[in-house]
Amino acid sequence: MAEAPRTSEARRDAVFGRWVVFSPARSRRPTDLKSHAPANPSPAAAGGGGEGAPKPSCPFCYGRESECAPEIFRVPAPPDASPWRIRVIENLYPALRRDAEPPAPEEEGEPTPGERAVVGFGFHDVVIETPRHDVRLWDLDAAGVGDVLLAYSRRVRQLMEHPAVKYVQVFKNHGASAGASMAHSHSQMLGTPFVPPSVTTRLNCMKEVFERFGKCSLCEFQSKDILVSETDNFSAIVPFAASYPFEIWIIPRHHSSYFHEIDKDTALDLGSLLRTMLAKLSKQLNDLPFNFMIHSAPFGVSTSCLPYTHWFLQIVPQLSVIGGFEIGSGCYINPVFPEDAAKILRELDC
Amino acid sequence: MAEAPRTSEARRDAVFGRWVVFSPARSRRPTDLKSHAPANPSPAAAGGGGEGAPKPSCPFCYGRESECAPEIFRVPAPPDASPWRIRVIENLYPALRRDAEPPAPEEEGEPTPGERAVVGFGFHDVVIETPRHDVRLWDLDAAGVGDVLLAYSRRVRQLMEHPAVKYVQVFKNHGASAGASMAHSHSQMLGTPFVPPSVTTRLNCMKEVFERFGKCSLCEFQSKDILVSETDNFSAIVPFAASYPFEIWIIPRHHSSYFHEIDKDTALDLGSLLRTMLAKLSKQLNDLPFNFMIHSAPFGVSTSCLPYTHWFLQIVPQLSVIGGFEIGSGCYINPVFPEDAAKILRELDC
Repeated sequence: MAEAPRTSEARRDAVFGRWVVFSPARSRRPTDLKSHAPANPSPAAAGGGGEGAPKPSCPFCYGRESECAPEIFRVPAPPDASPWRIRVIENLYPALRRDAEPPAPEEEGEPTPGERAVVGFGFHDVVIETPRHDVRLWDLDAAGVGDVLLAYSRRVRQLMEHPAVKYVQVFKNHGASAGASMAHSHSQMLGTPFVPPSVTTRLNCMKEVFERFGKCSLCEFQSKDILVSETDNFSAIVPFAASYPFEIWIIPRHHSSYFHEIDKDTALDLGSLLRTMLAKLSKQLNDLPFNFMIHSAPFGVSTSCLPYTHWFLQIVPQLSVIGGFEIGSGCYINPVFPEDAAKILRELDC
Repeated sequence: MAEAPRTSEARRDAVFGRWVVFSPARSRRPTDLKSHAPANPSPAAAGGGGEGAPKPSCPFCYGRESECAPEIFRVPAPPDASPWRIRVIENLYPALRRDAEPPAPEEEGEPTPGERAVVGFGFHDVVIETPRHDVRLWDLDAAGVGDVLLAYSRRVRQLMEHPAVKYVQVFKNHGASAGASMAHSHSQMLGTPFVPPSVTTRLNCMKEVFERFGKCSLCEFQSKDILVSETDNFSAIVPFAASYPFEIWIIPRHHSSYFHEIDKDTALDLGSLLRTMLAKLSKQLNDLPFNFMIHSAPFGVSTSCLPYTHWFLQIVPQLSVIGGFEIGSGCYINPVFPEDAAKILRELDC
């Protein structure tokens, strides 16, 4: 079916309730897809080979630990920790501050109706995924990627112990134009004292679908055309209403609300699939900058929400320029149909 | 108050219900604000002087009208139309197609619960703001900018006559990294067969504020610290919870739901203020790429919605890199406090 010429279509997804316009004609424009994106944005992305010599100016490299903000934990734990494989540290330039007083209701200002201001309390941590400057996440083996995922989940479990933390956003920026200020492979997480807007939107949309159809939005998808790959525990798809070209969602095949409840075997399985998906994207899109984000349930939601919250990992290659239409309307224009992107990625050998 | 050192703060606005983290410390990072942005992104932005010779390759220039998609109208209208000052034309590469069959309810597919797909019907038009290649919007005089705004409102009124058009998003992209594929000064509008997600979110949030406080979110703001400039009919502010550094909102001072109801005198007044704000941003930020968007009410909302819908124009300079935290959470990190940005812009002489 990918052979027939496609015409424009608008699709709304069942997770964010977001309309996306699929407009294949627009990729034939002079300013087409690939021209927006630098091919090799990150100095670290040199191919994963080499001897792994530390880069003199990089504080994330092995041997330069004292130049970083305080360490939270490392893997493996001491006394077997030299050389370490993963370090979780505080962000030296945190967006939210762990030393601020957590906001109490009486501290909230309300300068005009509906507006609110609270102190910038929160946690902003960094996960250094490898001691080597020239290794990308998908250069690790499946167990290595699985260990990074387990480090995320361990740190999320620590943060959820804090009563003022309402959500932890785990994310990775790869490449400067995707927001990475350090080339050395790392991810980040922000523990926020509020439930972020996209999380509220997602829960409301999934609740509506559940109430109307009696089904979780992510427990089934009918079309095999959007499937890229499957493992025992996860499906990797290009979502039906992908906002971004070549966007991928990795979704647990069995209903699960919280990413942080992942066990070791499941993390290994996810590590294997994530590694393959990143390798496929890198091969297809020439080591393009990308982001990935883990979408989980906020802490302390009532048990009645659990049947319709289903965590997943979203990978977004930075192929699109976000313009006024997208900023204004929240609606994205995607020149690549999900079925076509899925077919290309499915057939790539990685 | 801008003299005291600021600490991080999280603010939620009363229009989109969006949390924004203000983190001044992060602008001291090596990758700070200005380094992300090309200084002079748009070849058209050469200063507005010169003799205005058409650029051979530009179909938006005077004399090359036959190379464009069909014209909808021009200003002034024939027979005084040579030389024209403004042309409204069809987009040669439309995201939505006016020749598609408008979606009828029975055409809607529902591949899985909650998902929807409709044909890509809609209108995608371009407003060429000047016949001259080297003139930027803010190089025009107030009346010239006012005429562009009147051209927007006239075309919106035409599009709202179509029963399948639910919303018209008016927007301008300036500079390639802000999404402009043509350097010649122009704006665009998309008439969509659905209400875009941000519009739904905005209306829901403003409704909630109205029901709780009995007030429109945009009819008053208490702090003069965020005011940049005022005219008889409009206030230009840096919003209390600006998502982007140096973001500006131009808001009608008297409650008004629909942009397209603007009259000639009000358009002239808005033209004057918009021109000044764009000149200030260009001066402060070195002709940075930017977007502006007009946020209005969808067509055909019930009269009970009108007391809390209030249109405004949002200007967003492209200073920030959008990373995984923003994509994942919908929450922005802004290193510049609105009060500080407003003070800088207020004191600039333009």
